Amino acid sequence: MPTLDPDMGTIISDAMRNLGVTLFLKEELTGFTIEGNKATGVITNNQTIEADIVVLGIGSAPNTEFLKGSKIELGVREAIKVNAQMQTNVPDVWAAGDCTETLNLVSKQHFYIALGTVANKTGLVAGTNISGQKATFPGAVGTAVCKICKYEVARTGLQERELDTLGIEYVTTTITSKTRADYYPGAKDIKVKLLAEKNSGRLLGGQILGEEGAAKRIDVLATAVTHNLTLQNIIDLDLSYAPPFSPVWDPVQTAARSLIKKI
Amino acid sequence: MPTLDPDMGTIISDAMRNLGVTLFLKEELTGFTIEGNKATGVITNNQTIEADIVVLGIGSAPNTEFLKGSKIELGVREAIKVNAQMQTNVPDVWAAGDCTETLNLVSKQHFYIALGTVANKTGLVAGTNISGQKATFPGAVGTAVCKICKYEVARTGLQERELDTLGIEYVTTTITSKTRADYYPGAKDIKVKLLAEKNSGRLLGGQILGEEGAAKRIDVLATAVTHNLTLQNIIDLDLSYAPPFSPVWDPVQTAARSLIKKI
Repeated sequence: MPTLDPDMGTIISDAMRNLGVTLFLKEELTGFTIEGNKATGVITNNQTIEADIVVLGIGSAPNTEFLKGSKIELGVREAIKVNAQMQTNVPDVWAAGDCTETLNLVSKQHFYIALGTVANKTGLVAGTNISGQKATFPGAVGTAVCKICKYEVARTGLQERELDTLGIEYVTTTITSKTRADYYPGAKDIKVKLLAEKNSGRLLGGQILGEEGAAKRIDVLATAVTHNLTLQNIIDLDLSYAPPFSPVWDPVQTAARSLIKKI
Repeated sequence: MPTLDPDMGTIISDAMRNLGVTLFLKEELTGFTIEGNKATGVITNNQTIEADIVVLGIGSAPNTEFLKGSKIELGVREAIKVNAQMQTNVPDVWAAGDCTETLNLVSKQHFYIALGTVANKTGLVAGTNISGQKATFPGAVGTAVCKICKYEVARTGLQERELDTLGIEYVTTTITSKTRADYYPGAKDIKVKLLAEKNSGRLLGGQILGEEGAAKRIDVLATAVTHNLTLQNIIDLDLSYAPPFSPVWDPVQTAARSLIKKI
């Protein structure tokens, strides 16, 4: 999961191993063994592994091969360049969905993010404009969430690697808290990592790992990142608390209280 | 639950009746039948109801009786007046917790809200200032959440009654969506009501009813209300989506898309 920082990724890989999943993280897929028209094994640069079923999770890439040689400009990872109205550089040609690049509202640079939320929004904006009404798609902050067996994983904003590349000075912290009041049945561990700009304390990104009830808290961080909230702003938020839902301080606020000491 | 609008409250009372709870909403408690030192029944202006156990849920009031006649100024509902540093009007006297009034960041008026989140924050701010460091408590937006058997209830910001009193022109909508992708196991109904300022589209309040996974979505609305986000801002938020967690458009965004047509 390269969209998480390595320290958070390691926690997930450890958790998956605890569930009985074997990971080969340093081997490259080189091919498959095939019998008839069925894959029966996976060949890596190190071994061949027999398989009942093979599932590929290798991300996606924009299918823009057919545009090579046309006047349509391509950008990051050969995704189609569009403006906030989802217009390409060619008049009366629009593009939306996983074939387009997206403005990252934190880095202010374009990136490629093939997510249903962005595809859905850009389709709506393109369609609205094509039909003669006005709509704009401002961009995204890279919010994503997934479930791995019982584990929930969520992320938003920029991660360490991206901040290093951009030369932005930042501080980070990772805290462990609970999804409910500690004493309440069903309280689960949750880890929240925050990344904030040095000095200003502006939130730049967040990553959440945990069980049932953990991941959706990323939405507050996504909202905060989008609207340039600082760690103090997050601490000051009037977030909801009752024992079945959260500790008195929501874990995202506990993380902000920890990190503000470092800015 | 007077902190919800009547239309949302009715949905809860219907749900409670479906769970087998009998509600007497138009009767006043006038006393108890007592045997020895045990309450054995509840007397209303209409009937006497036998009881194995009596539980009172009647809210709370600031215990400031002892301050009558002192120089400490009291405000809303006789709660202690404090500034953002939690100082009373008397030098070197501080107050925090359920005895103090709170600035409502939406109405810009003081209100009385006896919640653990506010008490905890104001205690931290008072203590920090008393110890010679600096801290401020900006106020609250009235976020609250509770669980009634399997039902989750959440609210933030102002409700219709308050907006009417303030003379603020507003529009509202209530939508029904799901807590997860419709086809995903465990997807539950969720209702989201939004209140927004007419013309500007600024979010003024939100109320959420639903089952497992519904209520904590109020935190995005609390953040939005606090930072003056409009319905368009909410639609534009890059909130997290994966089938176990949400429909592609999070229910709070579906509500914003519905309401923006009315402003």
